Formats: sequence, structure tokens, C-alpha cells
Amino acid sequence: MKSDLDRLMAERAIDALLILPGENEDPYRAYLSNGAQHSGLVLKRCGAPPVLIVNSMERDEAAHSGLVVYLYDDFGYSELAHTYRDDRDAITSTWYGRIFEEFGVGGRVGIYGVSDLNNALRTVRILEKALGDRVTFVTEEARDTIFDRAYETKDPAELTRLRDVARRTSAVACATREWLASHRAADGMVVGADGQPLRIGDVKRYVRGLLFAEGLIDSEGMIFAQGRDAAVPHSKGADDEPLRLGATIVFDLFPREPGGYFHDMTRTWCLGYVPPEVQAVYETVMEAFRRAQAMCAPGVSTSAVQRMVCEFFEAAGHPTVLHTPATTDGYTHSLAHGVGLNVHEAPYFPTFSERYTLQTGNVFTIEPGLYYADRGFGVRIEDTVCLNEAGELETLTAVPYDLIISLES
Amino acid sequence: MKSDLDRLMAERAIDALLILPGENEDPYRAYLSNGAQHSGLVLKRCGAPPVLIVNSMERDEAAHSGLVVYLYDDFGYSELAHTYRDDRDAITSTWYGRIFEEFGVGGRVGIYGVSDLNNALRTVRILEKALGDRVTFVTEEARDTIFDRAYETKDPAELTRLRDVARRTSAVACATREWLASHRAADGMVVGADGQPLRIGDVKRYVRGLLFAEGLIDSEGMIFAQGRDAAVPHSKGADDEPLRLGATIVFDLFPREPGGYFHDMTRTWCLGYVPPEVQAVYETVMEAFRRAQAMCAPGVSTSAVQRMVCEFFEAAGHPTVLHTPATTDGYTHSLAHGVGLNVHEAPYFPTFSERYTLQTGNVFTIEPGLYYADRGFGVRIEDTVCLNEAGELETLTAVPYDLIISLES
Repeated sequence: MKSDLDRLMAERAIDALLILPGENEDPYRAYLSNGAQHSGLVLKRCGAPPVLIVNSMERDEAAHSGLVVYLYDDFGYSELAHTYRDDRDAITSTWYGRIFEEFGVGGRVGIYGVSDLNNALRTVRILEKALGDRVTFVTEEARDTIFDRAYETKDPAELTRLRDVARRTSAVACATREWLASHRAADGMVVGADGQPLRIGDVKRYVRGLLFAEGLIDSEGMIFAQGRDAAVPHSKGADDEPLRLGATIVFDLFPREPGGYFHDMTRTWCLGYVPPEVQAVYETVMEAFRRAQAMCAPGVSTSAVQRMVCEFFEAAGHPTVLHTPATTDGYTHSLAHGVGLNVHEAPYFPTFSERYTLQTGNVFTIEPGLYYADRGFGVRIEDTVCLNEAGELETLTAVPYDLIISLES
Repeated sequence: MKSDLDRLMAERAIDALLILPGENEDPYRAYLSNGAQHSGLVLKRCGAPPVLIVNSMERDEAAHSGLVVYLYDDFGYSELAHTYRDDRDAITSTWYGRIFEEFGVGGRVGIYGVSDLNNALRTVRILEKALGDRVTFVTEEARDTIFDRAYETKDPAELTRLRDVARRTSAVACATREWLASHRAADGMVVGADGQPLRIGDVKRYVRGLLFAEGLIDSEGMIFAQGRDAAVPHSKGADDEPLRLGATIVFDLFPREPGGYFHDMTRTWCLGYVPPEVQAVYETVMEAFRRAQAMCAPGVSTSAVQRMVCEFFEAAGHPTVLHTPATTDGYTHSLAHGVGLNVHEAPYFPTFSERYTLQTGNVFTIEPGLYYADRGFGVRIEDTVCLNEAGELETLTAVPYDLIISLES
């Protein structure tokens, strides 16, 4: 959690964390700014709280962080822009030099954030040239950075927000299920009161309306995929396609609060009736889901859970990534991932690794699935869960698991 | 525009453009992928169309680009993950090595995108070490990259989309104005039919509902700021604050299509009555706005327009960034910026630069403003305009400029 940052910095001998300015949403900046929305620079030295340096236009927003806020012009930005005009490299080198001087930044500095790559690489090269005698810019291995490790567990304030986003997302999924059930069957299709076929685009619009009413953003785009598309795990579904009776639908919903926390859940539904082949696969996936739930406890390696699921599926005759790494049939992905300010974050559940061990404060998905594009169906079930303050597995998603949605007659 | 990329690459001797994989929205990836939404790698060599390399789960989405799509596993990603396990650096170096080999990537390669900085820096350092004998990673000066220059002008398909987003955004702003006018005055405040004061949070919810109905996303957060807050140009406004009669409201709306183009506009409103001091400043800003409109034509330096507005304001007694670079009173920002897949992009309108010259195909804002926080008000007017196919200034925003909104009695 966030309070681990100083310990992690000390362990890794990183003297300062630097988030570069940038206009896009940046989970690193949000994390260090206590959720305040701004596009400025964040500097955190080991053992000290972060400081924000923002454009004067953002000074009020930045103050919501409760942190000390400086302005670009406290380090002469406008004057440098006036002096150096189009020579942005000179502006960069002088401005950062003053900031590093003011805050005594030296030693090993890590650069983080989600930002413009060309500009960031340029900045790092300029600063290496200008300040290389006092600063070394270090990188960390992907998925094992200081932030990955801090994100891995949530503090009580974060758990409260994650539970709230879970409640609102679950309400949307339940209302969607009920709304679908209010339709009726006709000629193998699902039709509304007007007798017109219901299309995937209609469903997505309805869901977006529900999300909106709950104050949630579908920022990465939900999946509502049918038949063969449901067997391509991240296919988002074709808007103009009518819903067919007996087709499997994979509905994967992963909205977020504005600028805040995500929830992630999936249900598989069949409207009207369930083909026997799908029913059998569904029961296998549900059994894998229950076995994974039962195994997730503090001290357990995430890979051990992933491999258990692979072995269970393989014993049931399905190919998996354990022995068929590039398979596109059967179980084609990893079991889970952490959820927080990023929809995918640590802990990860790789098939081969001992890097991540479950612990109190983890918030993560459990999402086994089986996919057969050639046979025209896919099945996935996903809840977001947490290992709560009592060390117990607490399921945050609250949506029925029933495969069939019976229609009005 | 996009068709300029090959010419720009040739002029700058850049052999390939590389967009790294990443989960967040990335305007560079969207631009080169013809709007297809995926999180994969994009590689464009000079003189050849881009190729996409995506996770197999995203193969259907990526195909919407109309470009050639490869899978991560076409270059053995899963097998490498199996072989190297937690050694992600080894996976990175081998996987990119195979891709560079397959497509004959060599020479000067530019890295672009909006992505995780630590991971990108790590990747560049690994590839420099592994492939440094055949590849040099180059950076370009901020605001003058190949992409900045391509973004600067829009092709007809982009203009069509930008006009459409403009129409929908304008409809939202007009409906907001009419809705505010349907309220009434009581005790110096604006109240609804229930006699309760209207608060800024109520207005923002109403606007978000209108945006939602238009299929637009308020992805960066609108500004609806009153009184002193309106004088801090990017203060977003305090949700719990009731609207006061005679206070200036700066309403800056900059939504986007999902994964697509932005619009950007601002109106300043006073509800019920206009204080004489605000009326005078408003007229000065409108005159600056009209003078800037009249001056914007192909061949004109953007800085010349910015300086003309500064000089006009200074002659009227207001401090500006021309002679008071760090001023927070008066005219505190630049006149305008381009609008496209980024809410701020080229052409920029710096005070001191000859870098940007207006040309056919530019889409940009015109947004003069005057701000006096100590006197409790700010005024800004902003339209998005384009220099259209006929070389004429076409105003895309269609919202009345009237300062006063009269209330129901």
C-alpha cells in the first residue's frame, strides 16, 4: 500500500520518484496526489511526502491533495519560456535543474507515470547530460516496480472505495440481467415490446446508461460478445448483431470511478435455453472458479493457484497455457490480476513464477474461462475479491452466477 | 495530416516509428491504427503502412483497422514467457529482436505513444544494449515531433468527425443554457422549481447527462467555475457551491467521442444580471476574440495572433504574458491550440516563436480571456474553428455568445 513506498524506496536504494507532467489520466500521479486531478510534476523523496509542481491554472485542484503545492513559475518557467523561446530542451534542462537543486534531488531517481514517451525519453536524455554528475535515472523490471509492489495491497480507505465501486457495478450487472429477462423470444431471436430484435449495440447503450446513473465510466469499453466472439476473450462484440437464443454471451464489465478505482467482473449468459455442450463447459468453469476461491488465502503463491486451475482443466480434457503456451482453444489466459487505480495491476497470476504471494489487502479477480471459437462459444466467470482485514476471502462482486436467462413468453 | 508521415519521416531521416504496447488510451496508437482500439504494438516503416502486433485476444478489434495484424505469438511471446519466466528483460529483448528482424527494422527509430514510462525506458535501454549495432533510438523536440506536425492539419475524414463532435457539443452547451434560464432568482441565488438552490454539482450532472445522450465522454472533466474560481483558468469549480446571481461563470466544455476526436469551447455567463465591471471586461474579451478571428488565415504566424491579442489587451490596461510572463492577473495564457485526437495539440500559439504558421486543414481554438481573482471574476470565450478546404475560417462551435442568462421571474 501507499505507506510501503518509503520502505520499498529504501530497500531498492531509490532516492526519489519523479512523475513527469502530462495531460492524460495517470494512475501514478493520482496515487501520489491523493486523487487530486492535475497535470503537473510530482516529486517524492525517500522519507518525505510528495510535493506537487503545477501550472498556476491548476493550483486550486492540486491543493485538494492536501500536499504542498508549488507553481511552475516558482522555478521560473514563464521566464525561461520567454528567454529560450522554441529551445524547449534548454527550458527543460534549466527548469528541472532548479527543481532538483531546490529539493536536493540526487542519487538514484526513478521515472514513473503514464505519459508521452518521446517527450519523456527526451527529458531523461537532457537531464542525464545536464545533471549526470549528481543524478542517475534508474528503471525497474516491469511488473516488479516500487509502484507495482505498493499497488499490490490496499489500505482501508482504498478498500472502502473499491467496495463501493463493486456495489455500483454489481447493481448495473443485475439490472442488465433483469432487463434482458423482460424481453421475449421470437424466431430464435430476442425481441423487445416493439417486436424488433434486440442488438448488442442496444444492450451496450442500456448498460452505459446504467453506469452513467451510478456515476461510473466505461473508460476502457465493456465486452458484450456472443457466440464465436465470446470465444475470443477480448473481442468487444459487434454492435449490429441481434441476440440469438441459446448463444453464449460473455459480459465483461470493468468501469471506474472518474479518475479513481476500477471494478472488474464477468458473467456468461444464455438467453432462452442452454445448449448441453455449453452447460457442461459452464459447470467445469464454475468448478474451477470454486476451487480457485477455496485456494486463495494469505501465503499462497498466485502461480500455484493458476497451475491448479490449469491442471483441473487439463484433467477435464481442455488444453491450457500450462502445457500448450500459445493455445487459442481451451484455457488461454491467466486466472487473475489485481484491481485498483489500474484495471490490471499486481498481484498477477503468471503460470510460471514465484513472484507474487497472496496477502491481506490484495484486491484481485478470479476469472477462469474456456474458449472454443470453432465451436462458436466461450465461457468466463469473474468476480473481484479481496483478502480483507480478517485475512478472509471477501467477494466484492454481487451478481447471480446463473447461466440461463429465461425470457418472457 | 496522416498522409504527411512518410514525407516527415524522410525529411527527418527516421526509418521507423514504434508505438509500444500499453493498456491506456493512446492517441498515437489510435491515429496509426485508423481508430481501431487495441493495446498492442504498432510499427510503421518509412514508405510502408503500419503493422499491428496484438495479443490474440484483441485480434478481432485490431482487424477493424484494415491493416495487417500479427499476433504476439507470431513472434513466440508465450513460448518466451514460458522459457524466461520472471526474466521480463530477456523476454523483451528476444521478442523485439525477432520483430525487428522480421520487418527489417534498422537505423533511426522513434518511440512514441502515451504509455508507462518506467517500462518504456526499460525497454529502450534493453534494446539499445541488445540491438545497438543496428538501431539508434532517436527523440524529437517536444511540440515539434513528426506526430505534432502530422496532427497539425486534418484530412477530410477527420474534418467530418470534428464537425460532428462540434455539433453535438454545441447542442449540449445550448441545452445547458436553456435549462439554466428555466430557473428563477430568489435571495440572490438561482433556485429550481422546488425552491432549492441550484449548485455547481447539479449543473455538472445535468451536463454529463446531456453529453451521455450525445454519445460524448467528459473524459478530462469540464470546468464550470464561478466568481473567483472562474479567474483561475483551470479550476473546475466547487460542486457544493450554489449559483449566485451576477457572478461570472466560466463554462469550458471539452468532451470527446469514445477513443476519438475532441471538441473544445468556453462560454462566460452571468445569471440574472451583469455587474458593470464584468460587462466592460466581457466586451474587451469579445473584441479580442473578433480581432483574432479576423486575423487567422493561411500563412499567418500563430505567435503574431497571440501577440496582437496581448497588445490589444495591454492597450486596454490589462497585464498580459507579453510583458509580464508569469502574471496571474489579466491575460495569463496563450490564445489557442490545435484540437484533434488530443484536446491540446499543434498548432500552438506561443507568445514568442515563429514555429507555427496557420494553414488549410488546421483545427484550433480561439480563446482570449481576462482574469482577476482578487476582484472575484474571470471571463473567457472560446470557439473551435477550422481553416477549411476553401482556406476560410469556419467556426465549428455554434453556441450564442450572450453573457447574460435571464431567469424566469
